[in-house]
Amino acid sequence: MNYSNALIVKLGGSVITDKRKKFSIRRRTVERLAKELATSKVPLIVVHGGGSFGHPVASEYEINKGYKRKRQLIGFSLTHRAMEKLNSFIIDSLHKAGLPAIAFQPSACFTVVNGRIKSAMLEPLRKMLDLGLIPVLYGDAVPDLAKGMCILSGDQIVAFLARELGVKRVILGVDINGVYTSDPTSNKNARPIPVISPKNWRGVSCPQRGVMDVTGGIRSKVDELLALAEHGAEAEIINASRPGILKRAIAGEKGLGTRIVGDSL
Amino acid sequence: MNYSNALIVKLGGSVITDKRKKFSIRRRTVERLAKELATSKVPLIVVHGGGSFGHPVASEYEINKGYKRKRQLIGFSLTHRAMEKLNSFIIDSLHKAGLPAIAFQPSACFTVVNGRIKSAMLEPLRKMLDLGLIPVLYGDAVPDLAKGMCILSGDQIVAFLARELGVKRVILGVDINGVYTSDPTSNKNARPIPVISPKNWRGVSCPQRGVMDVTGGIRSKVDELLALAEHGAEAEIINASRPGILKRAIAGEKGLGTRIVGDSL
Repeated sequence: MNYSNALIVKLGGSVITDKRKKFSIRRRTVERLAKELATSKVPLIVVHGGGSFGHPVASEYEINKGYKRKRQLIGFSLTHRAMEKLNSFIIDSLHKAGLPAIAFQPSACFTVVNGRIKSAMLEPLRKMLDLGLIPVLYGDAVPDLAKGMCILSGDQIVAFLARELGVKRVILGVDINGVYTSDPTSNKNARPIPVISPKNWRGVSCPQRGVMDVTGGIRSKVDELLALAEHGAEAEIINASRPGILKRAIAGEKGLGTRIVGDSL
Repeated sequence: MNYSNALIVKLGGSVITDKRKKFSIRRRTVERLAKELATSKVPLIVVHGGGSFGHPVASEYEINKGYKRKRQLIGFSLTHRAMEKLNSFIIDSLHKAGLPAIAFQPSACFTVVNGRIKSAMLEPLRKMLDLGLIPVLYGDAVPDLAKGMCILSGDQIVAFLARELGVKRVILGVDINGVYTSDPTSNKNARPIPVISPKNWRGVSCPQRGVMDVTGGIRSKVDELLALAEHGAEAEIINASRPGILKRAIAGEKGLGTRIVGDSL
């Protein structure tokens, strides 16, 4: 089956959880987003971040620094358990909205080397899509063939799947109106950037940092998406914390946040 | 790494749950088994059955008959959710016993055709074992490349992993003293069979049936293990409901239940 019409939607950890407080889900937001996702007319893959679930545990046990101490083994397991708990709440919300969502564990299907996905067995995922199921992946603690263990970000999963499946459109929901020229919380002159391409991205000196994010924040997010844009898939970073924006993006509306495009576009 | 010294332990659904009552875990039994597993001196892989979690949901939606109706999609997802809930309780119990256990989702890593595993990406699992983690798999609703969907039994996973990893010893915990000559609940002359080989198994006409088991009960379990024995791995079916038996089997004691061996042994 061809997945070029499928849509990958990332739900950022700062949207679905309160990053300031460990293990706190934004229940009403997740339930609203589930309803917005249910308006999709095309096959969906959902990927979500770790927010106040995965990040604090992964950070405590230094999972992303690689395997050094035996104590990290239980930390690896607890990071995954935290993500599974967050995931199960999202799955339940999607079910309530009528969507046949199914968890899909990244640490069971991606081969990762030095923090980068090297390969994946995607037959089960493709078959789920063919059936009409909605796989829901997430940032996860994963075994790393080089450094033992690491954190695989939801953003890298999004970019990898879009490339491998030939998906042409990716929507990333965050809790602000896109990528800003500088940190909007400290600089009142900060403005959202409507379109980022490899050329103008080099000129942006100081984008906002993520709060409590072990996977690199906004810069690594944009870098993943720029590499993806070069492969012909367009991404848009939108404000999923504002009701209705995700629904409009799913319906095909563009220019709602920051579009990430290749230089050729 | 060589896994010939590793041990695969299957915890039967009838041991860890009460099969007569939907979604009922035998908490104290699971906690005891976790402590018994913690006595292992060799790398462990744990696989568990569905019991009163997976089976009733899978049966209601006829997952094992293949994909026929759209309604089965939510059933597929609910079957997996039920198994994930059971799995998370087992993981938490293993953590309490000090073991770095980690869930491993079968529907994300096995390619299945007509109910049989065709291939798997085992790099993540191997790397987890190398680190010292204890992967915990389970019977699961899985996409099937031929019939759309099916149930992959924990028993088939056990046999597949033992073969692929070169594991030489497999322990299957059930809630009776092994495989009986006939149904011990209805025939008081029924006796446990100490050793089953391909030759004497053909003579057993009427083994007991499993209660609420969508994966074929004891006959398919023995068939999986006999095929495995031909590959050089010995299995023993023991009574894990009786305290201490699993611990003794893990320590290397044989003859505690029914051994499944190849004809050459």
